Amino acid sequence: MSESPVRPFAPDGDGYRWATVERKRYKEEGPARFRDITRQTLFRRPDMLGELRYFEVAPGGHSTLERHVHVHAVMVLRGSGAVLVGEGVFPVKPYDLVTVPPSTWHQFRASADAALGFLCMVDAGRDVPQVPDAGEIGRLRAIPAVASFLDTACD
Amino acid sequence: MSESPVRPFAPDGDGYRWATVERKRYKEEGPARFRDITRQTLFRRPDMLGELRYFEVAPGGHSTLERHVHVHAVMVLRGSGAVLVGEGVFPVKPYDLVTVPPSTWHQFRASADAALGFLCMVDAGRDVPQVPDAGEIGRLRAIPAVASFLDTACD
Repeated sequence: MSESPVRPFAPDGDGYRWATVERKRYKEEGPARFRDITRQTLFRRPDMLGELRYFEVAPGGHSTLERHVHVHAVMVLRGSGAVLVGEGVFPVKPYDLVTVPPSTWHQFRASADAALGFLCMVDAGRDVPQVPDAGEIGRLRAIPAVASFLDTACD
Repeated sequence: MSESPVRPFAPDGDGYRWATVERKRYKEEGPARFRDITRQTLFRRPDMLGELRYFEVAPGGHSTLERHVHVHAVMVLRGSGAVLVGEGVFPVKPYDLVTVPPSTWHQFRASADAALGFLCMVDAGRDVPQVPDAGEIGRLRAIPAVASFLDTACD
């Protein structure tokens, strides 16, 4: 018997979840700089060219500051926070759309008091993210709004 | 000046909407059998292989009964209703995931009292949908749950 075409939404006390979808903590996967973020891959199939994932950043947490050639097409689903895209910082709320263009520094940060959950569509075939070196971080920090965003208290 | 990376969610009295995203009524686009459904393309870019669209079916309305080789990867966003996938009928609620496999008859129906809104990820390159001929409709109607679904009062 194949999997049902419908996989129910089944949140638990620890966040948004779906039946039969595995939730992975980022800290299990690599050394990049992030804090309190989980990933659930909602759709990934050999007969589709795109993938859809759900990320959830705990209150005060953030995703990795990174860039890559592949594009992120994001829709916020829950909570609130702010995103860095390139040299701009933007507040986000549920259902806002965020486009991360190719080779653009980006990071998602949750508010101190609410988890930030978002969908992210990507191409199934994609390049490995890069993290900034000290020089890049210095260039980003020269932009006051970016420095303030990166210094949001959470560590 | 290029478009902002964030496009705010901006619902109006007539449903979910996003800044700068055009909303199209299906009835403007073709002769297929559907009722009270709109489409907004949230992400479609030449540098992505997938697209993300948002469909909203008015209370009592439905999408076209159709099939095609390309896959639909769906997340319900609002409302309630039911979906036909192949020979099965399934109730759906917000954030449920629906997979429509290749070459599988499918239709989305909104409840009588609530609009049904859902995201749908597809490959940017995809085949044209087919609608059922009388013989196919007869075969589908031979399944009691499907006949009941197709006869949901809305016309």
